[in-house]
Amino acid sequence: MKTGTKEAIAGVVGKNNFTDSLIDMVSYSYDASDHNHRPEAAVWPTSAEQISKILVMANEEPFPVIPRGAGTGLTGAAVPVKGGLILDLCRINKILDIRIGDRLAVVQPGVVYSDLEKALAPYGFFFPPDPASGKVCTLGGNVATNAGGIRGAKYGVTRDYVLGLEVVLPDGRITRTGANCMKTSSGYDLTRIFVGSEGTLGVITEIILKIDPRPTATRTARALFPSLKDAGQSVTAITHSGIIPSVLEILDCNTIKVLREQAGMDFPDVEAMILVETDGYTEGEASFQMEKIIEVFRENNATGIQEAESAAEAEELWRARRSAGSMAAKLGINNVSEDVTVPMSRVPDLLERISGIVAKYDLPFVIFGHAGDGNLHPRIMYDRSDPEQTLQMEKAVEEIFMATCEMGGTLTGEHGIGLAKAPYLKLEHDAVAMDLMRSVKKMLDPNNILNPGKMSL
Amino acid sequence: MKTGTKEAIAGVVGKNNFTDSLIDMVSYSYDASDHNHRPEAAVWPTSAEQISKILVMANEEPFPVIPRGAGTGLTGAAVPVKGGLILDLCRINKILDIRIGDRLAVVQPGVVYSDLEKALAPYGFFFPPDPASGKVCTLGGNVATNAGGIRGAKYGVTRDYVLGLEVVLPDGRITRTGANCMKTSSGYDLTRIFVGSEGTLGVITEIILKIDPRPTATRTARALFPSLKDAGQSVTAITHSGIIPSVLEILDCNTIKVLREQAGMDFPDVEAMILVETDGYTEGEASFQMEKIIEVFRENNATGIQEAESAAEAEELWRARRSAGSMAAKLGINNVSEDVTVPMSRVPDLLERISGIVAKYDLPFVIFGHAGDGNLHPRIMYDRSDPEQTLQMEKAVEEIFMATCEMGGTLTGEHGIGLAKAPYLKLEHDAVAMDLMRSVKKMLDPNNILNPGKMSL
Repeated sequence: MKTGTKEAIAGVVGKNNFTDSLIDMVSYSYDASDHNHRPEAAVWPTSAEQISKILVMANEEPFPVIPRGAGTGLTGAAVPVKGGLILDLCRINKILDIRIGDRLAVVQPGVVYSDLEKALAPYGFFFPPDPASGKVCTLGGNVATNAGGIRGAKYGVTRDYVLGLEVVLPDGRITRTGANCMKTSSGYDLTRIFVGSEGTLGVITEIILKIDPRPTATRTARALFPSLKDAGQSVTAITHSGIIPSVLEILDCNTIKVLREQAGMDFPDVEAMILVETDGYTEGEASFQMEKIIEVFRENNATGIQEAESAAEAEELWRARRSAGSMAAKLGINNVSEDVTVPMSRVPDLLERISGIVAKYDLPFVIFGHAGDGNLHPRIMYDRSDPEQTLQMEKAVEEIFMATCEMGGTLTGEHGIGLAKAPYLKLEHDAVAMDLMRSVKKMLDPNNILNPGKMSL
Repeated sequence: MKTGTKEAIAGVVGKNNFTDSLIDMVSYSYDASDHNHRPEAAVWPTSAEQISKILVMANEEPFPVIPRGAGTGLTGAAVPVKGGLILDLCRINKILDIRIGDRLAVVQPGVVYSDLEKALAPYGFFFPPDPASGKVCTLGGNVATNAGGIRGAKYGVTRDYVLGLEVVLPDGRITRTGANCMKTSSGYDLTRIFVGSEGTLGVITEIILKIDPRPTATRTARALFPSLKDAGQSVTAITHSGIIPSVLEILDCNTIKVLREQAGMDFPDVEAMILVETDGYTEGEASFQMEKIIEVFRENNATGIQEAESAAEAEELWRARRSAGSMAAKLGINNVSEDVTVPMSRVPDLLERISGIVAKYDLPFVIFGHAGDGNLHPRIMYDRSDPEQTLQMEKAVEEIFMATCEMGGTLTGEHGIGLAKAPYLKLEHDAVAMDLMRSVKKMLDPNNILNPGKMSL
């Protein structure tokens, strides 16, 4: 940044909302990924107008501007890889309106996911995407990465709930997209140009979210499988039976082993575990679905089928899934967690392919994920200070991406592309689609000031 | 078109797939709207490659190319207002794949909505958007207009079900967007740039659709209300109760009067009727929701509450809603049907505003629509051969659009913009959003060859 630029920026947001101290620059150099790079300064803007002014300055100089939520992203999307200014949106964090009769909430980007959950709970409503980092991540980040979670199979992802946005465009103009309504067919869908764009096309300053009534009845069960094929056939047979469970999680044999050895859980030596939840307004509805699912499990050689008879028992079944990530992490100093996604019928094939790939490189790994929407989380443990192990990890991840794309899948079901997957984007998308994405970026941000270096665009 | 162009086009698609006969040109001059203009020729392409070649020729000459489905659109979006070539997609009409285990169907754009319904029925699955023209309209048209229908409140619209597309871009390049998966966060959302773009940004040649299991239990009921306020409070109270009915239709006093006088139905003189359907896997689930709704009706002064005890009784209750449009049409030689949409809590206000507006112009009208997602269909009857009546109708429609936008609504919930609403687009969208839409059009179609004159872009 030129001399005087920092002062000018501080003048826009106020001195208390500006920093270039070393400790802050170090803090803003990373997110939850392996990537890091220091910015030159950071601000906590408090209005769309301030952001607009900063973006105008950024185009003039130019300098990079990197919008940031809670920094929980796993792909480096919030890392200022070209330096520049961090735009920390945590002080634009009001829940502006909850309108149950209109089935929507209006929020600012810095609102933490679980704060919206708490605000909606008294009404019996919720915002379903439920990312694993929900206790800390922000709704702006959810929209920017099109975040998803454990209930995606039945409830979809963030994209399905964004009705409209206020966005500051890279040139500083402020606009509103979408509508205050449940549906609209009015003009081009500008809203979804910004959903999942990882802060590269605009800065989201207001979000209108569709909300859902929270189901009042749930059933939870778990089953073990002697083979991946049996588990996979169960997943397919559940869909064929017409049941869409609210949760349908799969854990591979390595995850089960880790839970047994690290968490002392009493599991036999099986190839896969499935955790399933059904829901509805009535106990009868949740039970009807669960009975069908358990029938499917039995037909597909499941053992150890356990259905929770109480909330406490359900919590106990959930514990295995909830502990999986942290217990696996004990197997290495560092770990990388991917979110490759395939058509559901390919889940067992992908589990096998990933296992084969990572085993070759002799690194500890586990695989679990959302079988109900085809989204698997292979987690590979390694030591970042060991260049050899790091290289092995990178090779394994690249092969996983190639296998996923070969199987008609997508690199990322819910984490986004960021820096981590940018080199692989062209594995998934054809040259015309890649060119179209570059054209969208160029149309909105010709000077490439907004979050440059991401998505290889 | 220049001399030789028609021959060249016929050379691409084959003589049997080309026409410029007068009778065909007249047929292709209109859709289900009031607009019409003759094209110079029409083709029935049979592949994306043929479309690609035609679009390259169109850019060279240039001449307009207008993609067309079944022509059921109500906005003139398929009318070749600048002449040129009609691209009738009805011969690209195969259901390519139904993959229940992956919860998706792959279809070509010319597949008729109800043909997909029939193909999915044996599996117990359906494609929910359910436009009123489902028996004849095409899935390509559904995607191009982001079509919706009577079950939008619970099941959403076409946009919510499009996982991926094959698109021929205006410059002739063929690309694939989205994924074969339930979710993806990989790159910009190119898919939804094309959903609802009304054939102005690309020609859709393949569609990957998410599908849903069809509910196995439903309950249907009807209630009458002494005032719009009571009906409106019921709609709001139902949402507050956490119930999202699969159908929540409202009919105004004029509609009720038409049904009484034209269809001989035995309704008292009330201000509003609500038709409601709940669903689930189990009878208990559907009944639980219906009981809550009927409780709400009682608390809000409903009379004549009738709950169907059999499929035949449900069909009888549905008859009122189904007959509304055709019975109302008897009140005039021509009619215009709009689809303005507001936040649900504003439905009674919008009903009142529309009634006040149209009454001023002394034209017969009815209003019914999807109260569950705020989408109303005012239908105004007039005589198109009478310039005075036509002007009155147009004034009334313009005032309805203004009132809707004032109330935070959208011009169109499910029909699209086309020609009919193009002049009003700027009532809803700010200048920056309008400019952004124009930029998207220019980015993809710099020579403005694809469906020119639509959306005022």
